[in-house]
Amino acid sequence: MEEKLRRLREILREVYALRRSAALLWWDQATKMPPGGAAGRGEQLATLGRLAHERFTSEEVGELLEALAPVAKEMPYDSDEAALIRVTKRLYERETRKPAEFVARLARHTSESYAVWRRARPENDFVAVAPYLERSLELGRELAGFYEHEHIADPLIAESDYGMNTKRVRKLFSELREALVPLVAEITEKPPVDDSCLLKELPAQEQLAFAAEMVSHFGYDFSSGRQDLTAHPFAVKVSTPQDVRITTRIRPGDLRDPLFSTLHEAGHGMYEQGIDQNLAWTPLDRGASAGLHESQSRLWENVVGRSRECWEHFLPRLKERFPGHFDGVSLEEFHRAINKVERSLIRTDADEVTYNLHVILRFDFEVAMLEGDLEVRDLPEAWRGRMREDLGIEPPDDRDGVLQDAHWYDGIVGGKFQGYSLGNIMGAQLYAAALEAHPEVPEEISRGNFGTLHGWLKENVYRHGSKYTSEEILEHATGSGITTEPYLEYLRGKYTEIYDL
Amino acid sequence: MEEKLRRLREILREVYALRRSAALLWWDQATKMPPGGAAGRGEQLATLGRLAHERFTSEEVGELLEALAPVAKEMPYDSDEAALIRVTKRLYERETRKPAEFVARLARHTSESYAVWRRARPENDFVAVAPYLERSLELGRELAGFYEHEHIADPLIAESDYGMNTKRVRKLFSELREALVPLVAEITEKPPVDDSCLLKELPAQEQLAFAAEMVSHFGYDFSSGRQDLTAHPFAVKVSTPQDVRITTRIRPGDLRDPLFSTLHEAGHGMYEQGIDQNLAWTPLDRGASAGLHESQSRLWENVVGRSRECWEHFLPRLKERFPGHFDGVSLEEFHRAINKVERSLIRTDADEVTYNLHVILRFDFEVAMLEGDLEVRDLPEAWRGRMREDLGIEPPDDRDGVLQDAHWYDGIVGGKFQGYSLGNIMGAQLYAAALEAHPEVPEEISRGNFGTLHGWLKENVYRHGSKYTSEEILEHATGSGITTEPYLEYLRGKYTEIYDL
Repeated sequence: MEEKLRRLREILREVYALRRSAALLWWDQATKMPPGGAAGRGEQLATLGRLAHERFTSEEVGELLEALAPVAKEMPYDSDEAALIRVTKRLYERETRKPAEFVARLARHTSESYAVWRRARPENDFVAVAPYLERSLELGRELAGFYEHEHIADPLIAESDYGMNTKRVRKLFSELREALVPLVAEITEKPPVDDSCLLKELPAQEQLAFAAEMVSHFGYDFSSGRQDLTAHPFAVKVSTPQDVRITTRIRPGDLRDPLFSTLHEAGHGMYEQGIDQNLAWTPLDRGASAGLHESQSRLWENVVGRSRECWEHFLPRLKERFPGHFDGVSLEEFHRAINKVERSLIRTDADEVTYNLHVILRFDFEVAMLEGDLEVRDLPEAWRGRMREDLGIEPPDDRDGVLQDAHWYDGIVGGKFQGYSLGNIMGAQLYAAALEAHPEVPEEISRGNFGTLHGWLKENVYRHGSKYTSEEILEHATGSGITTEPYLEYLRGKYTEIYDL
Repeated sequence: MEEKLRRLREILREVYALRRSAALLWWDQATKMPPGGAAGRGEQLATLGRLAHERFTSEEVGELLEALAPVAKEMPYDSDEAALIRVTKRLYERETRKPAEFVARLARHTSESYAVWRRARPENDFVAVAPYLERSLELGRELAGFYEHEHIADPLIAESDYGMNTKRVRKLFSELREALVPLVAEITEKPPVDDSCLLKELPAQEQLAFAAEMVSHFGYDFSSGRQDLTAHPFAVKVSTPQDVRITTRIRPGDLRDPLFSTLHEAGHGMYEQGIDQNLAWTPLDRGASAGLHESQSRLWENVVGRSRECWEHFLPRLKERFPGHFDGVSLEEFHRAINKVERSLIRTDADEVTYNLHVILRFDFEVAMLEGDLEVRDLPEAWRGRMREDLGIEPPDDRDGVLQDAHWYDGIVGGKFQGYSLGNIMGAQLYAAALEAHPEVPEEISRGNFGTLHGWLKENVYRHGSKYTSEEILEHATGSGITTEPYLEYLRGKYTEIYDL
């Protein structure tokens, strides 16, 4: 058994050395690569991806897992070895049930569909993407069909949020929606917040440096990471232990974009940096689910990064860094400005309160389309209706409506959006639990000390990687499964004060 | 046969996708990687290297080559297919003759030896490296033994300079040495050149930008490349067609380091960028030999980059870029300063005239050690003696003597140095041929127009990649095999004028 486990680890090292190398190629493509490299980079990524997939889904791995699975069941559930066998087996089964022919067909469709969407969005041409969207739906259904399921969307949700299913997500999201639609209505009846203090032309390098200073304080480790510019910010692990990089972008005249996208990506980054070194070069060396990952980006971006305590410490530093730009700005004014709530069209620009309504709309439509209750051709109209209903605003065109996100045009439809709001829910739960364990956290934050919070998260979430499911981690850390209460309480408390509700 | 050739190309695509990916990992390590990534990067590089080697040396490739070789002989020698089969077969035979056990042993020795050298050099501790150097010599002899040879150093020379051998290099180098020792003596009897006009503290970013401006004019294409900082400058192809990156470094108070290292690396870069796209993802998609590669870096760095004509165009631009720093400097003064000849200890800092004497010394000692005519323990004393004899200067310690280059401590001894001086020789030959074809080149250069020269080199050298041997390329381009005459003529002419000999 020792020998079989050693051999399994050896193969996994190779698979993950290839996958992390592909991640570096991808990072380079998004940050450094000259245009001349584009054609060849696709070839390189395809080769590394194929080799990693072939090795991971090889018969040898199947035989090793078959032999090791019964042994793992005898081991303590908490042991690294048991977890390694358990999780690898789950992923192996998931991967090997997809026929190679399907994977190739999906890859071809994905690149075609994405190319069509890239042209269609600026041209506001939903008709052009509609047949591709139909195909993406069919492919989503076909993928779901490879696995046993209660609901057609369940296997697609489980791809990124293992342990979740349609029924549970629906219940959570309807709780959110019921609370948030009236909250948004209530807030937007109040006089709008003045955020003009944020609309400044500031030197780009200084904006990046200030954001880097903040996340260094949070606990993002630049000796195991770096920050670069890109078009669509992301965080990525390119080697282990640990080289986890974050990216951001500059938007002229608005400090918020580089600042909060850096805090967001650093949340993802700290999660990955904090994974136990023993789990390196295995499938355990990554966050437990899309939702739990997002809980960390949203916790650091919003719960911490848009809190009054955080800016008690950082506003004076901001004033020092940009002399003359924020001189007369009070903490109150700044705090209100960075938490301004608005009825808006674009999900990725939405504030903390309205954001979830954008996500829930997409999730509901995904499920409805998979079920056959919503036809692709009716989608634009359904989108406008739901936006009116939930957000009191309607997109003037499809460009800023149903065409705005790449997700549905980038492969299958299904399981693409739930993680964003699950993350908000779990982030608030985890923060509440950290506060219960360490009531001094807000006071520490106001002095620029994030160590207790970061330490608690590392101990309770980060270090485990994918050793446990996100639900197991949440239960262990907070004493409860996923629940919307702490999140809704947090939102209501914060915005009641800001908007004097 | 079509099918066999298609399959061979398919395997080679995979091999070179892996190798170029490894090159990107290596570039990243040298330019961007945070310290935390170091441990994992070794794992990634080892995995990609192993997979590429396994695929390239597989039995299937052997069988394909065996079947294709007779067909290739029927094809026109100049066809891409014939060249592909011919060159792949040569490399396949070279690689497969090295037993896997030897390769593993060499890899272990290399990393140990290099680590010992890294500590020993600052401590001036030759005794510490001596046993490793013995072992490197033995490994060099063992490697040579896998191939038929006249002289023990021949297969080692052929590893990087295919077509060359000990006898031919010795003959060329003795011609160089006979001419250069007296030339150096003659020059250094003259009053030293004043290079104080170059010793300026200039903003680092502007130095890089100016160097980038120069190489853009030369023909280095930034849309298929980029420039970054590193400790030891290099050029590397990370994807094809084409992403070829160059690196440089800043030395406080001396413009020469970033400037001329950029011109040098851009020479390598233009060679790789200029290779015909049809040769992508094959062994033909690289320069034909170490020496021919160096001919291009040295041609652009020295023959062009330190010419009066070049600075007729660029000195006014330098003055504009760094206002106040070069105001009173005349073209004469600047040209003399960048061509200052000195008796100096360090090869990589040496001027154009003395440089080859450093290289020839190393080549002669490599060969003598391999032959058994020079013992490792006698090397430091031999080094001092030869430096005195050839350069009239003696290193005060081994740090700046026998310990100065990594080459002998980084694997085997043998075949490591000849390319540097072969490059100088061939660079001058090619430049002379370009001038014969286009006598207007110097005049064009003085107007900042490098297109004719770059075009001639691309047509006659770059586009062929490794389709032909460097000797074939040279003969076709210049009408002659390798000969020292044009190089010695160039040096004598240039320095007679500068030093008023």
